[in-house]
Amino acid sequence: MKQMDRRMAEGILFTDEYQLTMAQLYYRMGLHETYAQFDHFFRSYPDYGSHKAGYCINAGLEWLLDWMADAHFRDEDISYLRGQTGRTGKPLFAADFLAWLQAHGRFDCLTLRAIPEGRVVHPNVPLSVVQGPLVAAQLLETSLLNHLNYQTLIATKAARIHESGRGRLLLEFGLRRAQERGANAGARAALIGGADFTSNVGISHVLGYPPKGTHAHSMVQVFMALGEGELDAFRAYADVYPDDCLLLVDTVDTLESGIPNAIRVFEELRSKGHEPVGVRLDSGDLAYLSIRTAKMLDDAGFPDVVIVLSNQLDELVIWQIVTQIEKESPRYGVDPDHLINRLVYGVGTRLITSQGASALDGVYKLVAVRDEGRWIPAIKLSETLEKVPNPGHKRVWRVYDRRRRATADLLSLDDESPREMDRLVLRHPTDHTAYRVFTQRELEEIEPLLVDVLRDGAWVYDVPTIAEMRERRQADLESLDPGVRRIMHPHIYHVSLTQRLWDLKQSLIESLREENAAA
Amino acid sequence: MKQMDRRMAEGILFTDEYQLTMAQLYYRMGLHETYAQFDHFFRSYPDYGSHKAGYCINAGLEWLLDWMADAHFRDEDISYLRGQTGRTGKPLFAADFLAWLQAHGRFDCLTLRAIPEGRVVHPNVPLSVVQGPLVAAQLLETSLLNHLNYQTLIATKAARIHESGRGRLLLEFGLRRAQERGANAGARAALIGGADFTSNVGISHVLGYPPKGTHAHSMVQVFMALGEGELDAFRAYADVYPDDCLLLVDTVDTLESGIPNAIRVFEELRSKGHEPVGVRLDSGDLAYLSIRTAKMLDDAGFPDVVIVLSNQLDELVIWQIVTQIEKESPRYGVDPDHLINRLVYGVGTRLITSQGASALDGVYKLVAVRDEGRWIPAIKLSETLEKVPNPGHKRVWRVYDRRRRATADLLSLDDESPREMDRLVLRHPTDHTAYRVFTQRELEEIEPLLVDVLRDGAWVYDVPTIAEMRERRQADLESLDPGVRRIMHPHIYHVSLTQRLWDLKQSLIESLREENAAA
Repeated sequence: MKQMDRRMAEGILFTDEYQLTMAQLYYRMGLHETYAQFDHFFRSYPDYGSHKAGYCINAGLEWLLDWMADAHFRDEDISYLRGQTGRTGKPLFAADFLAWLQAHGRFDCLTLRAIPEGRVVHPNVPLSVVQGPLVAAQLLETSLLNHLNYQTLIATKAARIHESGRGRLLLEFGLRRAQERGANAGARAALIGGADFTSNVGISHVLGYPPKGTHAHSMVQVFMALGEGELDAFRAYADVYPDDCLLLVDTVDTLESGIPNAIRVFEELRSKGHEPVGVRLDSGDLAYLSIRTAKMLDDAGFPDVVIVLSNQLDELVIWQIVTQIEKESPRYGVDPDHLINRLVYGVGTRLITSQGASALDGVYKLVAVRDEGRWIPAIKLSETLEKVPNPGHKRVWRVYDRRRRATADLLSLDDESPREMDRLVLRHPTDHTAYRVFTQRELEEIEPLLVDVLRDGAWVYDVPTIAEMRERRQADLESLDPGVRRIMHPHIYHVSLTQRLWDLKQSLIESLREENAAA
Repeated sequence: MKQMDRRMAEGILFTDEYQLTMAQLYYRMGLHETYAQFDHFFRSYPDYGSHKAGYCINAGLEWLLDWMADAHFRDEDISYLRGQTGRTGKPLFAADFLAWLQAHGRFDCLTLRAIPEGRVVHPNVPLSVVQGPLVAAQLLETSLLNHLNYQTLIATKAARIHESGRGRLLLEFGLRRAQERGANAGARAALIGGADFTSNVGISHVLGYPPKGTHAHSMVQVFMALGEGELDAFRAYADVYPDDCLLLVDTVDTLESGIPNAIRVFEELRSKGHEPVGVRLDSGDLAYLSIRTAKMLDDAGFPDVVIVLSNQLDELVIWQIVTQIEKESPRYGVDPDHLINRLVYGVGTRLITSQGASALDGVYKLVAVRDEGRWIPAIKLSETLEKVPNPGHKRVWRVYDRRRRATADLLSLDDESPREMDRLVLRHPTDHTAYRVFTQRELEEIEPLLVDVLRDGAWVYDVPTIAEMRERRQADLESLDPGVRRIMHPHIYHVSLTQRLWDLKQSLIESLREENAAA
């Protein structure tokens, strides 16, 4: 796409057509400045097929805010809309509406509360809450979902991979397999969720993390095609990068050629006063090869160089590799803990695309409309009770037990203070027979999760750094029950309603059903 | 991401770090201007789990060319690289290398041949062939794969969905579930592959296709929250868009409320001289509901309004819906062909993410290096013979039989002319016992697939329009055997080698194995 087209395709028209047709309808009906509230939440954890997430890591907010700050209807945008025609060839959008849209179609009138990036989040809990004039709040939908769905999906996948690798260094390698420029958002989300670095140079610079990478198979092939060999290629690399020498050892044959050549070059480096960094294995049986590699490196006097693993890794593959190493390495005379601690994971495709669950089902639902100064909760029936959104203005709380374990997320009405309730009832969101009761004595904390981000368009939020988001993520993960953190078949975390919110929802459902029956 | 950061993250630093470390090594070794050739190809068709593609649709080239034309090392990029340090804190990149990189790190020296967008393509066939100075050709890798992998993946998915919907109108709805700005590339690829329109406004403008969309559930909800009902919402919509009235009918209850209300509004519209456009079903059993909807619309005198289906559609779901309609609709007094012909498909998540196969495994492999004026074929061994790339300079041909069916893609050496061979041997790429023999009389055409795009950096290619790409795609699909077009368990299309290319590959493998054994 050409640069000038990019401004058109990534600005305020980065949206679905129906947002604009609805906007004109609201304008025509005099509803365009009616206040409305939309909740953004996802409905279910990513399900990767053979395994499923038990939590998500929230991400994407800062870049959404950047987009919102810039987005407005430029002359070119309006001129394009003016040219849109309906089936009869008449203009689809009228001049008065377009004039209003150009003047008021911005996001600097919205109030936004959100859960900060890096936090553990769960289904059906509002992650962002948007309040403001109907047209502006509705217009935001597509871009908000686009920004937040994807980064949350990838931060979640990164957290899982990080967990399965026991917190060892994780590198994001997916740029070539991402959805074009979405790769940058993916790399950022991976860093928030659990990757330590990315190979993506530009985004590393923007985020202030050094990019990682050494060489590809092609470098060794060039030397071979010119009549030299792998050893010459390794030597050349070591010459140019004596203190950063990490060698890819599987171009010819990992155990027969790559590792022996690497060891030779490492010895030469050391004799010149440099310590080698590591080797990378990119094919074959990575569990077996890493054990054999560790043994060879140990025997040669390089017990500290790292072993980078790559090639179609994800949380399950890494889990299996680590488990096999634990079991198998003693028979090769290799200490499993020592080996596991020197491993580094380079994860590409399966992280950046969240393979198996390639989208998060985040939605943006109308929950209240203001009429004559009064907020009216909105609801929508659905075939399944699970899909009926929770109505009205709400607050979101995280309930910690005495062990400092998060035991539930709780949605309350806006005027409720669960911290002051002697007897706190946590209702199951759909099963009317299921609830739990706590006294304050049983709880360590009831923490509000939503923070003020925009107030009537004014930025009232200190965006945390990526480092702070990473700390937040790790702290939140550690407050989860280990069963919830499990990468396969995790235990289900509770998301509950207060009694009053439950009652409101039931009464709205009932009155809607009655209306339908009467109609 | 802020606008100024975007330039940094989407320009020439939209690459992997190792491309830069290798570049410096080549510079240091005096190899930076050695000519090299890289082939870009994918290894296997997308495998969606329960179903698998039997062909791909090539896409992404034009946007890659746009990126290449702009990409160069700006002062800011060089200044960032100058600040990169290794483990000891010393600069990673030397001043002389960076000076050379800023002067010569561009793509205006490359020669590029490629298969045009919209064409049917198959595994292990070079889709693009890059020749030029080693550093420039190597530096292109990441961005080339990023641009071409994703668009080819999505064009392929769109073609499959288009096929399963029997060519009926297909709308791309995935913006909110894509990888952030990658959504635009996805929408473009969907149009090339088989979507007719997209809901994405900005990209529709850029590509010259009108965006599609009407309204969301939230519009009906707003009216309901304000004490009115679905009927009022529909009437308002019809008032504003009398000639473009397409109503979403499942906010309350499709058959009990939505369709009856829509019919009432359609009758009112008609009485004022307007013809309604259609209804959209977004939940429930879409096969059953579309039959019941068709019957109600038929009975009310609206046999021509379209029925748009959406909600988690993909090629399998559409296939099932169409099959069930064929079988079930007669018992409701609905003509199946008439119903199927009035269906329109709105496909979001599962198209834009190619759900089930979220990445194409495209790779970029060194196949030859020039030394003292002579091209030397490069090869790389692998555990599996399937993964050993085909060496050297090649040409790519499509072989059509007398029925004008494409019977194989054929890779030959650069100096071979299969069109002039009396006896054409098509060798299986890995199975040494398998081959086919044709005489020219048995063939209608042997078509060269690669076209010249860049010659020493000069643009020598007329980029086709999207409409031309779509025509090309349809013609190519029609030349495929129906078994290859099947959406489940397709028949395998042949990709073959000429005898001489086969011989070259074997001799290179053999000599490499001998070298390894000797080492």
